[in-house]
Amino acid sequence: MTDKIKAGIVGGAGYAGGELLRLLLLHPQVSLAYVQSRSQAGKPVSETHPDLLGETDMVFSAEADGDVDVLFLCTGHGEAKKFLASATVPASTKIVDLSQDFRWNEGTETAAVEAEERTFTYGLPELQREQIQQAQHIANPGCFATAIQLGLLPLASAGHLTADVHVSGITGSTGAGQSLSPTSHFSWRTENVSTYKVMSHQHLREIKRSLRHLQPEQEVAIHFVPYRGPFSRGIFITSYLPTQLSLEEAQQLYRRFYELHPFTFVTEHNPDLKQVVNTNKCVVHLQKHGDMLVITSMIDNLLKGAAGQAVQNMNLLFGLDETAGLKLKPAAF
Amino acid sequence: MTDKIKAGIVGGAGYAGGELLRLLLLHPQVSLAYVQSRSQAGKPVSETHPDLLGETDMVFSAEADGDVDVLFLCTGHGEAKKFLASATVPASTKIVDLSQDFRWNEGTETAAVEAEERTFTYGLPELQREQIQQAQHIANPGCFATAIQLGLLPLASAGHLTADVHVSGITGSTGAGQSLSPTSHFSWRTENVSTYKVMSHQHLREIKRSLRHLQPEQEVAIHFVPYRGPFSRGIFITSYLPTQLSLEEAQQLYRRFYELHPFTFVTEHNPDLKQVVNTNKCVVHLQKHGDMLVITSMIDNLLKGAAGQAVQNMNLLFGLDETAGLKLKPAAF
Amino acid sequence: MTDKIKAGIVGGAGYAGGELLRLLLLHPQVSLAYVQSRSQAGKPVSETHPDLLGETDMVFSAEADGDVDVLFLCTGHGEAKKFLASATVPASTKIVDLSQDFRWNEGTETAAVEAEERTFTYGLPELQREQIQQAQHIANPGCFATAIQLGLLPLASAGHLTADVHVSGITGSTGAGQSLSPTSHFSWRTENVSTYKVMSHQHLREIKRSLRHLQPEQEVAIHFVPYRGPFSRGIFITSYLPTQLSLEEAQQLYRRFYELHPFTFVTEHNPDLKQVVNTNKCVVHLQKHGDMLVITSMIDNLLKGAAGQAVQNMNLLFGLDETAGLKLKPAAF
Amino acid sequence: MTDKIKAGIVGGAGYAGGELLRLLLLHPQVSLAYVQSRSQAGKPVSETHPDLLGETDMVFSAEADGDVDVLFLCTGHGEAKKFLASATVPASTKIVDLSQDFRWNEGTETAAVEAEERTFTYGLPELQREQIQQAQHIANPGCFATAIQLGLLPLASAGHLTADVHVSGITGSTGAGQSLSPTSHFSWRTENVSTYKVMSHQHLREIKRSLRHLQPEQEVAIHFVPYRGPFSRGIFITSYLPTQLSLEEAQQLYRRFYELHPFTFVTEHNPDLKQVVNTNKCVVHLQKHGDMLVITSMIDNLLKGAAGQAVQNMNLLFGLDETAGLKLKPAAF
Repeated sequence: MTDKIKAGIVGGAGYAGGELLRLLLLHPQVSLAYVQSRSQAGKPVSETHPDLLGETDMVFSAEADGDVDVLFLCTGHGEAKKFLASATVPASTKIVDLSQDFRWNEGTETAAVEAEERTFTYGLPELQREQIQQAQHIANPGCFATAIQLGLLPLASAGHLTADVHVSGITGSTGAGQSLSPTSHFSWRTENVSTYKVMSHQHLREIKRSLRHLQPEQEVAIHFVPYRGPFSRGIFITSYLPTQLSLEEAQQLYRRFYELHPFTFVTEHNPDLKQVVNTNKCVVHLQKHGDMLVITSMIDNLLKGAAGQAVQNMNLLFGLDETAGLKLKPAAF
Repeated sequence: MTDKIKAGIVGGAGYAGGELLRLLLLHPQVSLAYVQSRSQAGKPVSETHPDLLGETDMVFSAEADGDVDVLFLCTGHGEAKKFLASATVPASTKIVDLSQDFRWNEGTETAAVEAEERTFTYGLPELQREQIQQAQHIANPGCFATAIQLGLLPLASAGHLTADVHVSGITGSTGAGQSLSPTSHFSWRTENVSTYKVMSHQHLREIKRSLRHLQPEQEVAIHFVPYRGPFSRGIFITSYLPTQLSLEEAQQLYRRFYELHPFTFVTEHNPDLKQVVNTNKCVVHLQKHGDMLVITSMIDNLLKGAAGQAVQNMNLLFGLDETAGLKLKPAAF
Repeated sequence: MTDKIKAGIVGGAGYAGGELLRLLLLHPQVSLAYVQSRSQAGKPVSETHPDLLGETDMVFSAEADGDVDVLFLCTGHGEAKKFLASATVPASTKIVDLSQDFRWNEGTETAAVEAEERTFTYGLPELQREQIQQAQHIANPGCFATAIQLGLLPLASAGHLTADVHVSGITGSTGAGQSLSPTSHFSWRTENVSTYKVMSHQHLREIKRSLRHLQPEQEVAIHFVPYRGPFSRGIFITSYLPTQLSLEEAQQLYRRFYELHPFTFVTEHNPDLKQVVNTNKCVVHLQKHGDMLVITSMIDNLLKGAAGQAVQNMNLLFGLDETAGLKLKPAAF
Repeated sequence: MTDKIKAGIVGGAGYAGGELLRLLLLHPQVSLAYVQSRSQAGKPVSETHPDLLGETDMVFSAEADGDVDVLFLCTGHGEAKKFLASATVPASTKIVDLSQDFRWNEGTETAAVEAEERTFTYGLPELQREQIQQAQHIANPGCFATAIQLGLLPLASAGHLTADVHVSGITGSTGAGQSLSPTSHFSWRTENVSTYKVMSHQHLREIKRSLRHLQPEQEVAIHFVPYRGPFSRGIFITSYLPTQLSLEEAQQLYRRFYELHPFTFVTEHNPDLKQVVNTNKCVVHLQKHGDMLVITSMIDNLLKGAAGQAVQNMNLLFGLDETAGLKLKPAAF
């Protein structure tokens, strides 16, 4: 088909890059032009990502060369900025950057981030789908940031974030990337739990900016305890705050807010993480205990928390069905 | 689309039934008419399989009622036979049975099993795709049987199974179904290993029958040690036997045998189980040590070992592309 | 040795009973008189607990018969009360009950619980070792209750619990006992996360009572989110509240409080759960972020959270070294 | 106590060294003089092995200095030889080397290995306890080698190894040491299976030498498929060969052979790996299928497969009770 969107990936050897590859190779409206990786240049893609055996004969390129309609940047934090500063990417190329380099944050005053002669729109469709549809460059949100925001956006949109929010969350090992470290060793991590960046996780900055976007008149503190869990995929978040809303009112607020969003679902049953693993979905659940509203929100960190959301953003950028290439069979087990 | 194949599922609450649901709901040429389950009748499908939240509003039916083009039987062993003996399924309805009730076995003399006034063809496409294409009723192979056979078929087809075969294999917990037992308890199974049915696994019977089909003049013993492993999805098989074939000859034999089969791949790299998890693929790897040929073969037990292969068989029964609805994003992690 | 303490176990087939058996069989000053289990009566103990193969020839008895110095009740909640109401246990027999039947709770006014003509002292040695030493009957604390209290006791003892406390915690599967249920199935629990009894966990009642004991003049709310994690042993707790104390002051307070307690340790390094697995230890870690004091506390739920603490209490009841029989090699991995 | 054995550890930062530390710190007749580690010199032992928090204040030394009664070498393969060639260890110091540097192997003609002016006795107590008791230097067996031999020794001792032996085995991640590699990453290894060194594992060489020791007149081939499993501790072995022995005769042979050995047990129940985890035990189980004798044997690779057996050997070298310091509470879960 001559109408397919030509896509390129920069940094295709890592976890997010690999997941993006898995998605784009199956996307009905995308043709993959190249996959760049400095470390794997010249090697078949299916050697680095052996689950792609039989799916592609592509070889990693050393350079991000060739004309593409959309460029996905899956490089490390700080590297996206460097890449755009040095590479000659045509102004017409749409960009989805998966790093934090161009995400808005606490201090961002404007509606988007200006950098490298480009304007980057924060790419959380449930927050600002229209802006994304009209954007040229997208800063794809962080994984924890996505899961936490999807638990809080409806409240903020209605001005109901009126007290400190207490958040705890558990992430799988793919959230930390594939670099080797003592805490990524199987012997250490299996059957183990630990915390990291307690109260100081970098994703809090983009979360606060988004909440200010919806609820400019009031800022609340967000206290966040992130856990490392002994599993590979997924993020499970529990948030709570006191509210005057009854459970029914809160459920109605959430259902209405997500009604037209195809990936976020409100459930009345106590959920578990594997409902969303290997899907682009977010599942949200509400409880009320006394005056405390407890919100559970869950995503697959590599999909809705990274590569899946990047494809969702691409779909919006090009006017495709928002779910194109993202109807995925859940792993379930 | 009015041309969609109307499918029904009997026994949709279990692991295989659930996986079949996940596949058929996303299959572009299938329309699901009903999902029957005695235990869950009246309950929304997405309550029993919560990963299907947002994917379907179907409710389990108590009976397998309604006219369908194809019926999938996902009931327990022995139950499929009972069902067909008592239910009035039109002769024109195609059937894919996932139980062992109608699989050929060591003692089966004919090319298919006659039972309940029907003829059941053993549904391993890599063994007999043409027969499946012309069949009306399919006995879907067992999970261990599929993985072991895919490791041995090329040798048998060329008359190279000339010595006892030694097989060990490790299966995930979903292979044992969802019934609760001491050995299915998480506290027991996590970080644990055990064997079961050593040298006496029931799948050996269909394996032997298939090998006789390809290599009628010589029967060899198959010694099989099945392990339970601490993971949920997948079967990993290692088989070996002495052979005169060089490694190159063996690789060529295997590559040629699987050349036109879209799901089975021969790799030159030492493989690992997660290459196939959440896919319908089988990955095969060969090594030669002295005169011993060592064959690794791996599948996802719920897909190529059950529901995926059932859909593959349905595709063949109806003349569809063999891979329709089976291009799945690997879980990878 | 003729001076050994004669011990009996009621309810020896469950997780806590099994762990107690493992400890008492190796305890240098204990002789095990009988292990009762209704469900396993007549069966060798090492069949039900196969890790005890070679450690004991004992057979489960149907009745708790025979004279013992100390009786451990490892029956389910509600069963301990019934047992003592119907059995004829001599008044001289010391009792350690591992259920919640005789634990103090929010509403308990006195320093101990009076029931079944006995006085039960709440058995958390770090809270009230002297009272335990003089007691005759012990109500062994709950696992979550132990881990949370050990994170908060020093603050309460100094009157520093002056604001709401926010607590999240993750428990392994053995915390839920060995009964079979959909959420105890390996296929479900592996690589999965969920919450349960959010804001309403029953252990909050004994925690609140203990805190009132130390800090009677002020009561604070405790907001608790309990998670189920994909591992078998251990509880990992994170608690936080605002405080005027500097990190150094808090560390000094905690170190002083636990100085003479042999199982609870304050670490300056970010800890992980496997530091305490298969030990009777509790590890506590403090951080300060802004005015928020964050306290991590971790135990093995079957040891310091159940059977290990029961033995610790027995040691205190009989005037033995508090650590007798509890110097355990950590599993570490 | 002035009579304690003074012990030193060279290479105390790795998995085997850490496990040895855990054991020796609790051994009633051992006083630990120093723990050497080049990489961790100057750091507290409990920082590198955080499970030892509260157990010791020792600091890693840079050199193996000071007079000791027994020296444990936990360095990598090849390093033990180098160490002894360069260090000045008194001739009177007993040595237990955990590497493969001084183990006998296929080609070793004498009853022990002569190297670095010392004679190293192969330290498998179930094979040659008397020789160990009279030895001065011990080559501690490999983990797979221990598990496989304990499954075969009784047969070899009676001249019943008369046909090729087929062996498959699964090892936990600690068997591969703590060095970081793609296959040690949690994201890769969790829920995964793979093979390595199929038919060519280096431990086969010491196994063959031991079997020749017991059964010099006949040599049989051993075909070995080693698997990597998704768990941290333990080795599970299944071996089989045809035999004339009845099941009862085989059981009697095994029971008699291990009767006076305190760590190896024959069970009549189908065993599972966690029976031995965190113990120095080996559990052996026999089945007969047709004329095939199937032998299961299981150990904890860090204990009976490394540090535990090293302590067992030390006990024998010094005339202590063979089980001193090795009565360990099983982890069970």
